[in-house]
Amino acid sequence: MTTDPDAITAAILVIGDEILSGRTKDKNIGTIADYLTAVGIDLREVRIVPDVAEAIVEAVNALRARHTYLFTTGGIGPTHDDITADCVARAFGVGIDVDPRAKAMLLERHKPEDLNPARLRMARIPDGADLIANPISKAPGFRIGNVFVMAGVPAIMQAMLDAIGPTLPSGAKVLSETVVAGNVAEGTYAADLGAIAGRFPDLSIGSYPSMTQSGFENRIVVRGKDADLLARARAEVEALVARLRR
Amino acid sequence: MTTDPDAITAAILVIGDEILSGRTKDKNIGTIADYLTAVGIDLREVRIVPDVAEAIVEAVNALRARHTYLFTTGGIGPTHDDITADCVARAFGVGIDVDPRAKAMLLERHKPEDLNPARLRMARIPDGADLIANPISKAPGFRIGNVFVMAGVPAIMQAMLDAIGPTLPSGAKVLSETVVAGNVAEGTYAADLGAIAGRFPDLSIGSYPSMTQSGFENRIVVRGKDADLLARARAEVEALVARLRR
Repeated sequence: MTTDPDAITAAILVIGDEILSGRTKDKNIGTIADYLTAVGIDLREVRIVPDVAEAIVEAVNALRARHTYLFTTGGIGPTHDDITADCVARAFGVGIDVDPRAKAMLLERHKPEDLNPARLRMARIPDGADLIANPISKAPGFRIGNVFVMAGVPAIMQAMLDAIGPTLPSGAKVLSETVVAGNVAEGTYAADLGAIAGRFPDLSIGSYPSMTQSGFENRIVVRGKDADLLARARAEVEALVARLRR
Repeated sequence: MTTDPDAITAAILVIGDEILSGRTKDKNIGTIADYLTAVGIDLREVRIVPDVAEAIVEAVNALRARHTYLFTTGGIGPTHDDITADCVARAFGVGIDVDPRAKAMLLERHKPEDLNPARLRMARIPDGADLIANPISKAPGFRIGNVFVMAGVPAIMQAMLDAIGPTLPSGAKVLSETVVAGNVAEGTYAADLGAIAGRFPDLSIGSYPSMTQSGFENRIVVRGKDADLLARARAEVEALVARLRR
């Protein structure tokens, strides 16, 4: 990861006891990570916190101060454990109340007589926030300042991310090249790879082992925004691997 | 999530650019979460940070101070981007050098003439740490203070977790009961469920929607350490759902 001061950066905050208990396996982090990488925004940090107000408020304030954008998932449903909107309002020091625009969205799905206080909780939006449409179940997410508040259900999160997308500036896209080292051991190329990484300080060069039935399978990934630099580094890495494969 | 001050708590720190870029989808968080839940340790926080020393040191120090245990994954291989051990030493303010015990483990896999400086990096262990055996590729993890440093490759992480397990005290196990609400909408039971949660402040009661082809499928999960309380709360939740299903 480069530390380009002009980079557009982001953090993700996943909110929910069910992730921390292991009951639900998060899928949103990977989806958002792929999305941000594709549009050239550097994801720099992820946190997962429980449904505890102090933990949420602290994380929102820490992450929104450090990064261009913060994306949160989870905790915006109608039940007592859905406290994200209130916590975001508290983090920003603004009021929160039923938003007429959000209520109108809920009325697209629910009859007026079914819009009970619990469902109306889903229309509670911090003062000054813009809504993020939810084409699936209508209850909106919202954006306040540099914070995007989205649902935790993956299909709804994805729909909200699609809605947000066009409003985000694109960073210079991070290009990526992968050189398959296969069963050439990391330990045999580590020193030379480190030397290459040292010669290309504006690129990020990583070595990623994975296990297969027949042993380690290694891949070297070169990432960066400058296509020429990238091509030069890739050629050096390929030459290194070819030399060791002989 | 309850806030029992006697609870044994834990955090996870996932280290690696490849997770933040979306290239690799993390599987370790869910594995460790399941493991901790099974032995009665409350996982309270997870962070994912890049291969950047300042970010790693800061997260290690924040999380080890707040929780009974911190588990880290990733960044202990032989390449230049594997900087976890050095960062943990820096976080603890201790020295780090090649550890003869760790070197002996590496020699079980590598011939002496193959133990080059890059591979020897995997034997660099902070002063005062205990080793965690790695039956798969030998390069050990380690424990220093309340911090367990493990590999990022899931199979190796799992083996290290198995090695650590018997050394951890078990907390009072968190019991969990799930009531299937099916397509009964969250908004119809939210108020009553909140009232039940209010009557059982020592339990954690959550409502978890998921999407299926035919719409929402909701589950209510009651969690806690007291079996009698849990049975009473479960009965109330079941009665609530049964009433709404009629």
